Amino acid sequence: MTEEQARLELDELREHIDEVDRQIVALLNQRTRVVEDIGRVKRQAQLPIYEPKREELVFANVNSANQGPLTNAQLRGIFERVIDEMRRIQRIRMESDGAK
Amino acid sequence: MTEEQARLELDELREHIDEVDRQIVALLNQRTRVVEDIGRVKRQAQLPIYEPKREELVFANVNSANQGPLTNAQLRGIFERVIDEMRRIQRIRMESDGAK
Repeated sequence: MTEEQARLELDELREHIDEVDRQIVALLNQRTRVVEDIGRVKRQAQLPIYEPKREELVFANVNSANQGPLTNAQLRGIFERVIDEMRRIQRIRMESDGAK
Repeated sequence: MTEEQARLELDELREHIDEVDRQIVALLNQRTRVVEDIGRVKRQAQLPIYEPKREELVFANVNSANQGPLTNAQLRGIFERVIDEMRRIQRIRMESDGAK
């Protein structure tokens, strides 16, 4: 493979990654909106916001869908970050509700 | 809203999250396979594996696709973790190639 051929192939593969990433962004935002809905329901019904058991169910669902090549441990690392960022949004929403 | 109604609504919203998460898992694994292809092309053409400029292009693409409610900074946090986990795979592949 010449360097020129390699560069062309890399450009194509990167375009594929960019497309996958845009889909992931849309899904992460969709997930966030559902998390916001959950927060609203919990506040209305005065249920606790944080439920550690639910987190384990999220990881169990993620593992059950995993066909690799990522390992379950790697996916857990990524989803821990996802959950963390979304929890931050919940906290900001609660504080602004409390300030009203 | 009664607690019973809230519980039912939460169950539905969580089923939605689980479905979104399964789609995210599939896309993350798809992304990993493309990253592995990129690694193969780079090794064949003896191009450097790590290209810091490319990382900024990934974030630029992610930001351009972002319609919220997640902020660009939050998405950056999540994608940094994604890139990190995938770089780990690349490193393992290179080490096992080197051992051959």
